[in-house]
Amino acid sequence: MQSQLMLTLQQIAEHLGGQISGNAETQIHRVGSLALGQSGAIAFFNDNKYKSQLEKTAASAVIIRAEHAALTKLPKIITDNPYAYFAKVSQLLNPKYVASQGVHASAIVDASSEIAATCSIGANVVIAANVTLGHNTVIGASCVIEGNVSIGDNTVLEANVTIKHGSLIGQNCHLFSGCVIGNDGFGYAEQANTEHTSANSNSTWLKIPQVGRVIIHNFVDIGANTTIDRGTIDDTVIEEGVKLDNLIQIAHNCRIGAHTVIAGCTGIAGSAIIGKHCKIGGAAMILGHLSIADEVTISPGSMIMRSINKAGTYTALMPSQAHEDWLKTAANIRHLSHLTDKIKALEISLAKLTADKT
Amino acid sequence: MQSQLMLTLQQIAEHLGGQISGNAETQIHRVGSLALGQSGAIAFFNDNKYKSQLEKTAASAVIIRAEHAALTKLPKIITDNPYAYFAKVSQLLNPKYVASQGVHASAIVDASSEIAATCSIGANVVIAANVTLGHNTVIGASCVIEGNVSIGDNTVLEANVTIKHGSLIGQNCHLFSGCVIGNDGFGYAEQANTEHTSANSNSTWLKIPQVGRVIIHNFVDIGANTTIDRGTIDDTVIEEGVKLDNLIQIAHNCRIGAHTVIAGCTGIAGSAIIGKHCKIGGAAMILGHLSIADEVTISPGSMIMRSINKAGTYTALMPSQAHEDWLKTAANIRHLSHLTDKIKALEISLAKLTADKT
Amino acid sequence: MQSQLMLTLQQIAEHLGGQISGNAETQIHRVGSLALGQSGAIAFFNDNKYKSQLEKTAASAVIIRAEHAALTKLPKIITDNPYAYFAKVSQLLNPKYVASQGVHASAIVDASSEIAATCSIGANVVIAANVTLGHNTVIGASCVIEGNVSIGDNTVLEANVTIKHGSLIGQNCHLFSGCVIGNDGFGYAEQANTEHTSANSNSTWLKIPQVGRVIIHNFVDIGANTTIDRGTIDDTVIEEGVKLDNLIQIAHNCRIGAHTVIAGCTGIAGSAIIGKHCKIGGAAMILGHLSIADEVTISPGSMIMRSINKAGTYTALMPSQAHEDWLKTAANIRHLSHLTDKIKALEISLAKLTADKT
Repeated sequence: MQSQLMLTLQQIAEHLGGQISGNAETQIHRVGSLALGQSGAIAFFNDNKYKSQLEKTAASAVIIRAEHAALTKLPKIITDNPYAYFAKVSQLLNPKYVASQGVHASAIVDASSEIAATCSIGANVVIAANVTLGHNTVIGASCVIEGNVSIGDNTVLEANVTIKHGSLIGQNCHLFSGCVIGNDGFGYAEQANTEHTSANSNSTWLKIPQVGRVIIHNFVDIGANTTIDRGTIDDTVIEEGVKLDNLIQIAHNCRIGAHTVIAGCTGIAGSAIIGKHCKIGGAAMILGHLSIADEVTISPGSMIMRSINKAGTYTALMPSQAHEDWLKTAANIRHLSHLTDKIKALEISLAKLTADKT
Repeated sequence: MQSQLMLTLQQIAEHLGGQISGNAETQIHRVGSLALGQSGAIAFFNDNKYKSQLEKTAASAVIIRAEHAALTKLPKIITDNPYAYFAKVSQLLNPKYVASQGVHASAIVDASSEIAATCSIGANVVIAANVTLGHNTVIGASCVIEGNVSIGDNTVLEANVTIKHGSLIGQNCHLFSGCVIGNDGFGYAEQANTEHTSANSNSTWLKIPQVGRVIIHNFVDIGANTTIDRGTIDDTVIEEGVKLDNLIQIAHNCRIGAHTVIAGCTGIAGSAIIGKHCKIGGAAMILGHLSIADEVTISPGSMIMRSINKAGTYTALMPSQAHEDWLKTAANIRHLSHLTDKIKALEISLAKLTADKT
Repeated sequence: MQSQLMLTLQQIAEHLGGQISGNAETQIHRVGSLALGQSGAIAFFNDNKYKSQLEKTAASAVIIRAEHAALTKLPKIITDNPYAYFAKVSQLLNPKYVASQGVHASAIVDASSEIAATCSIGANVVIAANVTLGHNTVIGASCVIEGNVSIGDNTVLEANVTIKHGSLIGQNCHLFSGCVIGNDGFGYAEQANTEHTSANSNSTWLKIPQVGRVIIHNFVDIGANTTIDRGTIDDTVIEEGVKLDNLIQIAHNCRIGAHTVIAGCTGIAGSAIIGKHCKIGGAAMILGHLSIADEVTISPGSMIMRSINKAGTYTALMPSQAHEDWLKTAANIRHLSHLTDKIKALEISLAKLTADKT
């Protein structure tokens, strides 16, 4: 699936900087890993853990830090951040697909909407009233964009994305298939049975109208089937450079700080405020109304129940065990209070014995 | 995004009851929170925890209980349930969007289906044979409704909802974008390799046809990208007034009791029976074939492995810690059996010492 | 919802084998459970736990093992694997819905794509360039299939499925509504602020182009709203006979071994390699770059943080408790290191006391 481009190490370094060591005319056709790289591929080396892979790699060249350069005789590019350099080489070798400009004949676009001439609007797209799409915006097949939405330059919506009314989406964002932006938040007031007075309120749970918006800043990516709810009164905000993986739920009134990354299957409950440059592992969960400081890392699968005021890594996980061992562990956990009591009793008895002796 | 309506406290009380204290002609343009409320907004006060916010609020009026009325000099409406009252005020000020009636020219509707004249059928909707839609039903853009589905009066499907064949959906329901109702349940019988006899069964896992339906009663809300599977033989049932958040999985043959609320990212495994008026926190998980009593609260992130026969709150969570502390905790948990053994040994030694002494 | 077919036990045994005991002319109209089965239904018995249901069942016949045959006087079919036999009877009584062949007038199919004459292409389907669809393939309403996709014979896509460019899907697969196949993986390289040099890299996180594919072998089922990401460089692979439930995330570069089943809400992080014939419970989570051996069972809700090299069942769960009890448990867990220290101190004191005595 990689493109048919070819670049020499010399040409790569002209685009991206870095210092070449070895044959600058080495031809690079693709990126690869050390383990699976083949002739014509460039790989990267970042960690001594992969030394033996480096020794055996079939790749034609390596991106590497100066301190590791002596580890291989392959042609190489020396740079401070080999993984970021590798990303840039891959971007050079695999240029973004350029969608053909124009509005597909089957798209249904309200006459009041402003669609830049450089946009690409796919088949069966539905765009409602007063929508504004910036330059080079790409709207994939079967997307639905409701009224009063604004989407900035160079933003891409893959197929089957739903954008609810009033959402504001920045420039250079990438929204993946099946994501839903601006859905009503989950807000209900409980009422006693005696308060059920009309057809409209014939329910224990009275809906709080969700009249805020979703605001997404520039350079934000949103994964497949991820949902971001609109605010109850004020807005739900995703700051610049945030990257969200698939199947994430961001509830109403949340604010996700700039450049924070969140891995898949994670849930952020209502009104949580997440700092900048945080890293949240997959299937983590953050309760509502919490604040998380900047530069916090949450381990995967960890439920966070209290605000975190200090940068660092936080974890809440049961270790896994063979099931028979776990059965004992679980029983012991249920009896931890009992164990604590026994230790207390032992301490008292022992103190008494010791006292008696002296 | 809030509407341009204006109501005086007097007008609000005429609609919703409650006792006015202060200037009944105070003009209300919007709902707001105590913290972020501005002039023209009405907020609510429910909890002494927010006393300082009440003192400083810029809102023009407050909804409050009699016992707290003395805490503020602002114009106020006194009522027993301020949050429910607030919900109703917000509903007054933010009337539901009324979709234009009729069938969009691009919708594909089978001639055998009965669509009430008051329905609104959006662009690119697909409706198959023998579907019945009640009065004022709204079907958002790009929804797919398969054959033999029935949807009651006043129910709204947002854009991109999928309803599988034979599903029955009540009145006044609200289904959000991307939800899938009536998908096949996950049911397979395992067979030994020697039983693989035909192309159709060339697999370890033999599919059990899923021939039950999904039945959704009145006043049910279903969140974005939530999935509810059809029953294997009998039906999956969601009772009246249930509210489901986003990205929830309800497996085949479940029954969710009336007025139960379930927060996002939760999974309910097959054939679980959940009582009425339960509150299930986000990312909780309930195993299959369990029964949960009425009025049970499950804490967020908690996995429930046994039936619960008694109302109350239940929790199963590891506390979060700084990662270095957690590493020690995890090691200790793995060795809990060992700790228990040590305590037992200490008790025996101590008993022996004590006995020797006397 | 079950069909109107009727078969005698004799006819069933002619199709599926097994030994009849009792009246071979007993008429079977439907499958049922022991508990809810009615006249005309056939149920199965597999486990002595359900003996009392067997005694009371209203079903007309039972599928049962030889060792249990004496437990009921009902007409029966005796076979080694009653549940698999039951699945096959249900398949006989509930034949798959046969979609009408042909391309719906509203479908948008690129002229370069090859669509077998026996395919069924639903309303509003979008099929891009160079797609190949095998015999009897069914593409449900509003599916989007991007360029260079290949789908094998007899595979069914339910409504609203999205297949990204270049994906290869085998024969006899079943993809359910809302699933997204071939989405970009979640891969970014972190760069320091000083490295932000152009509009394209004005971000902390540099995207790694995801140029691998998703390859799905034969007899694979994929649940509603499940997401499977394409590989970064090489491919993400789902082997033959794998069954995935709803709302599952399979990240880039994973390989799921043949005949493995994964229940709903589970996440498999990037580059994890799962063995064959594994059973992974709902809401489980497997970290990236791990290897799981063949025939491993992961309990529901369990986070797996290390590779597993040996078949068996593995678990990582906090037991649930009444909330008040859990509060004590959680406090004790936080202080486990402290408890361990106390036990150590007790052991030392006791050893000293004992030594002093002798």
